[in-house]
Amino acid sequence: MAIDRTRQRWQGWGPIDAPDPLGDRAGAWEYLAQALGATSFATTPALPFEAAMLPPPLEEADLARLSAVVGGDRVLTDSFHRACRARGKSYPDLHLLRSGDAMTAPGAVVLPNSTDEIVAILQQAEGAGLAVIPFGGGTSVVGGATGGGTRSIALDLTRMDRLLDLNETDRTATFEAGIDGPALEAALHARGFTLGHAPQSFLYSTLGGWIAASGSGQQSGIYGRAADWFVRAELATPRGVWRTESFPANAAGPWLGRLVVGGEGVFGVIANATVRIRPTPETRDYRGYVLPSFSAGAEAIRNVVQAGVPAMLRLSDEDETKFLSGFSTFGRRPSLRRRLGEAYLHARGFSRNFCLLIAGFEGEGREVVRVRRAAETEIRRAGGLALGRSVGDRWYERRFHGPDLRDPLLDRGVGVDTLETATRWSNLQRLYEAVRGALAASIAAGSPGRGVVMTHVSHSYPEGASLYFTFLFLRRPGEEIAQWRAIKTAASAAIMDAGGAITHHHGVGVDHLPWMMREKGPIGVEILRAIRKTVDAKGVLNPGKLIP
Amino acid sequence: MAIDRTRQRWQGWGPIDAPDPLGDRAGAWEYLAQALGATSFATTPALPFEAAMLPPPLEEADLARLSAVVGGDRVLTDSFHRACRARGKSYPDLHLLRSGDAMTAPGAVVLPNSTDEIVAILQQAEGAGLAVIPFGGGTSVVGGATGGGTRSIALDLTRMDRLLDLNETDRTATFEAGIDGPALEAALHARGFTLGHAPQSFLYSTLGGWIAASGSGQQSGIYGRAADWFVRAELATPRGVWRTESFPANAAGPWLGRLVVGGEGVFGVIANATVRIRPTPETRDYRGYVLPSFSAGAEAIRNVVQAGVPAMLRLSDEDETKFLSGFSTFGRRPSLRRRLGEAYLHARGFSRNFCLLIAGFEGEGREVVRVRRAAETEIRRAGGLALGRSVGDRWYERRFHGPDLRDPLLDRGVGVDTLETATRWSNLQRLYEAVRGALAASIAAGSPGRGVVMTHVSHSYPEGASLYFTFLFLRRPGEEIAQWRAIKTAASAAIMDAGGAITHHHGVGVDHLPWMMREKGPIGVEILRAIRKTVDAKGVLNPGKLIP
Repeated sequence: MAIDRTRQRWQGWGPIDAPDPLGDRAGAWEYLAQALGATSFATTPALPFEAAMLPPPLEEADLARLSAVVGGDRVLTDSFHRACRARGKSYPDLHLLRSGDAMTAPGAVVLPNSTDEIVAILQQAEGAGLAVIPFGGGTSVVGGATGGGTRSIALDLTRMDRLLDLNETDRTATFEAGIDGPALEAALHARGFTLGHAPQSFLYSTLGGWIAASGSGQQSGIYGRAADWFVRAELATPRGVWRTESFPANAAGPWLGRLVVGGEGVFGVIANATVRIRPTPETRDYRGYVLPSFSAGAEAIRNVVQAGVPAMLRLSDEDETKFLSGFSTFGRRPSLRRRLGEAYLHARGFSRNFCLLIAGFEGEGREVVRVRRAAETEIRRAGGLALGRSVGDRWYERRFHGPDLRDPLLDRGVGVDTLETATRWSNLQRLYEAVRGALAASIAAGSPGRGVVMTHVSHSYPEGASLYFTFLFLRRPGEEIAQWRAIKTAASAAIMDAGGAITHHHGVGVDHLPWMMREKGPIGVEILRAIRKTVDAKGVLNPGKLIP
Repeated sequence: MAIDRTRQRWQGWGPIDAPDPLGDRAGAWEYLAQALGATSFATTPALPFEAAMLPPPLEEADLARLSAVVGGDRVLTDSFHRACRARGKSYPDLHLLRSGDAMTAPGAVVLPNSTDEIVAILQQAEGAGLAVIPFGGGTSVVGGATGGGTRSIALDLTRMDRLLDLNETDRTATFEAGIDGPALEAALHARGFTLGHAPQSFLYSTLGGWIAASGSGQQSGIYGRAADWFVRAELATPRGVWRTESFPANAAGPWLGRLVVGGEGVFGVIANATVRIRPTPETRDYRGYVLPSFSAGAEAIRNVVQAGVPAMLRLSDEDETKFLSGFSTFGRRPSLRRRLGEAYLHARGFSRNFCLLIAGFEGEGREVVRVRRAAETEIRRAGGLALGRSVGDRWYERRFHGPDLRDPLLDRGVGVDTLETATRWSNLQRLYEAVRGALAASIAAGSPGRGVVMTHVSHSYPEGASLYFTFLFLRRPGEEIAQWRAIKTAASAAIMDAGGAITHHHGVGVDHLPWMMREKGPIGVEILRAIRKTVDAKGVLNPGKLIP
């Protein structure tokens, strides 16, 4: 089933009828007030949809061109459907939509059913001078889904959500690109397989989006990231259909299919894609550990991943460990079990400053035991202590729920955003300190109260790892965008100066564009432009995204 | 130490003073005559260097431009050095050079010492209208090293062979691109590491060549192929220096560094590159097995690789198994051990048509035992039987020696060439039969006697594997190139029609160019052209290679 936009929050995260996860958590708000140095919280609800400002829809002549391709029932012009595709889910996106600014809403939403239809739409758009924004789940947190106003079309791929082929021998599956996470996994599970790609946006994001934004699932240490599981794609371009190479390995020139991963829809619309699949894991084993320090934990992860042990390893720094633990229990009476746990840690010589590591293992039963033991050897060597499965199970259960907190926080004048980067192991500590420092300083300079800055290692590789930062701050009413931009700019500059990647898995969109250009260098940027020009001479696709 | 061309055969393989491996092997010749249906062998030695025809060297004015950049002692114009860079080691290359045709020899050989020198040379060449052919080991078997005559320069990278950095924490090393296999591994071994990339050309090929041709080492199942271990490169282009992305993972647009792998020197000259390294293996364990059939063996390999077991798995088909066994023992009295071995196989129900599988395991001692046992479980399940370590050790010892046979065979009127492809598991048998059939038929149609066609699975992946074909035939005097081209064309057409990649690891050069174009499709080819135009507007670099 395609995503039903009428059941989703047009300016927030998740279903319209989802309960407020902080509704009955006075203690959590109390803890937050203390952490942010706030005396009280404002009341800053989102404006109702009726107050939203939209640009006018496309003119009749253009609508007629599009209807001639897909039929009138698949060209939507009503305000609600256009507003739903005005923006993605970045901090500025949410702020603007909540304030009723839907001026980036497209002039129409078109729902194609096939690659050929997309080509025809692109050619019509080229002729009419319209911009086309491919739209899947619309969950981009970097401005990758921003619409282009009246003279643009949101090309909503979510009706293209079929499993086209599953080859058990080759362990590959081909899906239309608009299929969302739950539907894709359901189709695979029914045949005994999984892709295993589960980013935090899993419930709402699509296969095409995962590939276009070069995404990583939380278990990429086991299942690989998009670049690892992607095999081939069929793309619709204004020039026609581009089918990328389709071999397990190939030395006939550079692998052009790799350009599709991270291509963000400027090199063609991904219509369908083939991915590597694996048997549904027999066993899932998630556990918690405490490490005496962030650097000791990172060292353990490095040793595990360099030994080739497939695992999810998620290490929170001291501040994240402390905040999450406080936020989830404050105002509740700590359970006997928790109090005993703290006494145990104390007896084992752990100070209050320790780091939580969540490790996950998936696969065939005995193999899971083997890899867990291999990982635990390194964790113990780094001074780590096992907390058991309940901590891991709880993390697993709540693994997609982090973003649910954004709406209630924004309702009370609290800003929250995340950003991420990656670097080599030998540079990890330097990058960690530089970005934390930049976030803390820029929040302090531009916000009432104090900021909260938390970090975890989310994905790791033989030569390095990613760092994922979550930060909370009190918003400056009326200046929310300027305040956010100052923080984002300071953090991005710190990332670049300290040798980090501007993004590990969020993508470029519009927010990371200037930094991407620095990263690619002038020759790299011109190569990107030359490729785009080849497939899309007039720049119909996603103008302003990825490439300036 | 850079490769000393004066000690290498300019028109053959290996050192000038290497012994003839078939010199005292009358039995092998007898076996070969029988296999090829020959009554006798011709005497067709290579012409001496003195008989070689070369184009004139570059004119003084151009030489002066180049000498101004690198100094006169690093601009070579003597016939020998130019003839050494006239061609690579493909079948047509060897035939033409042996016949004294060195008309593709460059007008000069330039030996740069730095990235900046290469940029300056490229800019001088652009100004003077000269073509530049990057030259490493010159071992291309697909015409990737063919020179361009008087108005071209061979840019010999082999003086750029230093280790620039080795980071033990990150497990990465950065080398200048002209370093050859033995020197690279020696530098790493001295610090306890290995790259593990060992193609059959290992002794003579260079890091830059491995990357540019998208190579695979024999142990790519353990250490990965070039695309897997390549991290980043610094390239010299006529526009200046292009440094590709340098992160363990990155979502800031498509990974442009991936274009360098398989770029064949048309997107810039690889000046240095960073690669992933691993600890020198504590243990190497190579073993032989027999499988009842090629399809049973392939099935075992598929199960091993899909279970994620890192191993080298090299499966010969029945014809290759039989030929290699006969060729190596014919005319010798079979040893008692061999006769006992055959009796054993017979007793275990194996017919004479069985397949040899060489499996190799490398790494930490206990881990090697574990992965070998995992592989052996699948081999046994497929009806396989262990032959023990001596077969494996012998294969390992001789793993670089296959090409040594080409010169003595060509000396006796016997043509030998190899080609390779890759496809999905579910298509492997179809591709195997199609290519074998095309090779056998085209040899039969154009050659005296019969052909010998042998196949092995050389590299495997979760979704498919490569097939490597070796074929021998009696040459048609005076029509050697036409005869070879008919075979190559028939095999290439069969590969394409049966859904195979035109090359798994040999690269494109000039021989695979038309097939590469079919593989990439019109949009793909134009993307390649657009990228080249961006970095090299006038097409100075490697004209005629990779892209038409």
